[in-house]
Amino acid sequence: MKKLINDPAQVVQDALFGIEAAHTDLRVDHPNKLVYRADAPRPGKVGLVSGGGSGHEPLHAGFVGPGMLDAACAGEIFTSPVPDQIVAATKHVDGGAGVLHIVKNYTGDVMNFEMAAELASAETGVQVSSVLVADDVAVQDSLYTAGRRGVGVTVLVEKIAGAAAEEGRPLDEVTAIAQQVSNDGRSMGLALTSCSVPTAGKPTFDLAEQEMELGIGIHGEPGRERLPLAPATEIASMLVEPVLADLPFQRGDAVLAFVNGMGGTPLIELYLMYHEVARILTGHGITVARSLVGSYITSLEMAGCSVTLLRVDEELIRLWDAPVRTPALRWGA
Amino acid sequence: MKKLINDPAQVVQDALFGIEAAHTDLRVDHPNKLVYRADAPRPGKVGLVSGGGSGHEPLHAGFVGPGMLDAACAGEIFTSPVPDQIVAATKHVDGGAGVLHIVKNYTGDVMNFEMAAELASAETGVQVSSVLVADDVAVQDSLYTAGRRGVGVTVLVEKIAGAAAEEGRPLDEVTAIAQQVSNDGRSMGLALTSCSVPTAGKPTFDLAEQEMELGIGIHGEPGRERLPLAPATEIASMLVEPVLADLPFQRGDAVLAFVNGMGGTPLIELYLMYHEVARILTGHGITVARSLVGSYITSLEMAGCSVTLLRVDEELIRLWDAPVRTPALRWGA
Repeated sequence: MKKLINDPAQVVQDALFGIEAAHTDLRVDHPNKLVYRADAPRPGKVGLVSGGGSGHEPLHAGFVGPGMLDAACAGEIFTSPVPDQIVAATKHVDGGAGVLHIVKNYTGDVMNFEMAAELASAETGVQVSSVLVADDVAVQDSLYTAGRRGVGVTVLVEKIAGAAAEEGRPLDEVTAIAQQVSNDGRSMGLALTSCSVPTAGKPTFDLAEQEMELGIGIHGEPGRERLPLAPATEIASMLVEPVLADLPFQRGDAVLAFVNGMGGTPLIELYLMYHEVARILTGHGITVARSLVGSYITSLEMAGCSVTLLRVDEELIRLWDAPVRTPALRWGA
Repeated sequence: MKKLINDPAQVVQDALFGIEAAHTDLRVDHPNKLVYRADAPRPGKVGLVSGGGSGHEPLHAGFVGPGMLDAACAGEIFTSPVPDQIVAATKHVDGGAGVLHIVKNYTGDVMNFEMAAELASAETGVQVSSVLVADDVAVQDSLYTAGRRGVGVTVLVEKIAGAAAEEGRPLDEVTAIAQQVSNDGRSMGLALTSCSVPTAGKPTFDLAEQEMELGIGIHGEPGRERLPLAPATEIASMLVEPVLADLPFQRGDAVLAFVNGMGGTPLIELYLMYHEVARILTGHGITVARSLVGSYITSLEMAGCSVTLLRVDEELIRLWDAPVRTPALRWGA
């Protein structure tokens, strides 16, 4: 294992100091491993809180800022944040209009966010709603998960619901929009290599030089099958077809197409993959209304990619296009 | 070698199709492997052209757009673009105010950009100026390079000179600003792993499990020395101290601090490194006025990082903060 770190047990804490130093419009609560907007709470605005295990950067801390999250809770690497962190985040961003929790569907996250919502409500009366993201079509039930895993759609929920909250929409509307994105998005991923959790010191799994793992989870959980390494054209088909069949996406649909890198895959390969994905979609009569190409929800240094498709209407496109100012997604005023 | 590709000889061409499909405000000239702004040429605006070997994405095509480059020429992986490509780019973005070439100091790039400047001037009378970036303090002369190599400062030259050009400043002023950034920036990098050029099919060099290469070049050229893998605190010192000593940066200076990932290093490690870098700078009485953390000039899937420091004044900060809208750097109106 070769990493740019000091103590393997302190990686998350050490990185949070870097986030704090690099981004003057964010604040870090170090005891609670919490990143939040410097201007939180915003009176009258719905607060958006997400979080989860670390190792998926820029998710979630890289998406804190105007137009997206108000706070992100950082768990240890690939480990859910504890309820106390989430309670602290919820209280911190509560501007009187309630708080939405965006939760990836892993058993630990679901349990800890639920407990935190109850605790925060009981302690301060804050109204908390919650949206679960469970978009990974690869497998049903998995290591760490009952049901489907939450992966790439999480980024899109955070952006689109963040835009709705920034407009001053009430909690029920922001929640409904987040739920729509969660309902209408699907993903699947693939690994060419494993990653190594710092405290483990060795790869999570082994993949031979000519093998790839189709349907990989973002913590290296087993996927659908191991296959011989294939050309990008075939890989794109193996990822896109199950995603299309699942919703199902249909001829005439407009989508946001997101090709995501797992952390160790260079951008040139992601653009190459994006071309393959776009070509398949065109072949199915599906219009790509918006796109996103880059490493936004990662698995440490894992090589590989995932494909996420979200069915969009004009309102979702408008919210996607709205200004955002976070470390990892940033555009507009 | 495990990559998301089809034909190893077609990786650059295939990725350009992806860039074209993903970014509707860019255009691709496929025969010339050229990415340019859809609205080029902009009458009365100085045109900015850069380019170089591919494999360093998002550099350079990811920096094409308002506020930064007008065009980028993509060579084959780690290979200079040929003069014809650069001539085509130069003609294409000439809005009558002249064109600035931003050239990384590698023998092939220098020769081909010089030849292209002469050809373009002779053919159309376009006025071409050129700024060489040679910021890598690691070694003097190297594989592919006479003098110092051009690395991280290239990103900063493209952003800052791009902002000046966008303001409508004349060619001599834009060139002078680019030259100032080139003069006042220094970098050094380090690799934990090699990368594999697709057509070679195997790693460019070998590094043992407990080794790192200090002063690595962005094509895997040899650095200063091989050392045992060290903690991030020590690595930061090995990179920052030679950079500081070289300009030299002095107590009271304000800098833009840029921690760059080589392609295979996850963002969590870059933020951890950024904290170490910022701490060293503070210890030297240097103020970090602006920062950039992420993988902006890469070496395919190489693991490692580089540190770039640029001495800044108020004018450079203002230009750095100016709006930019490119695939990889994007903010403001």
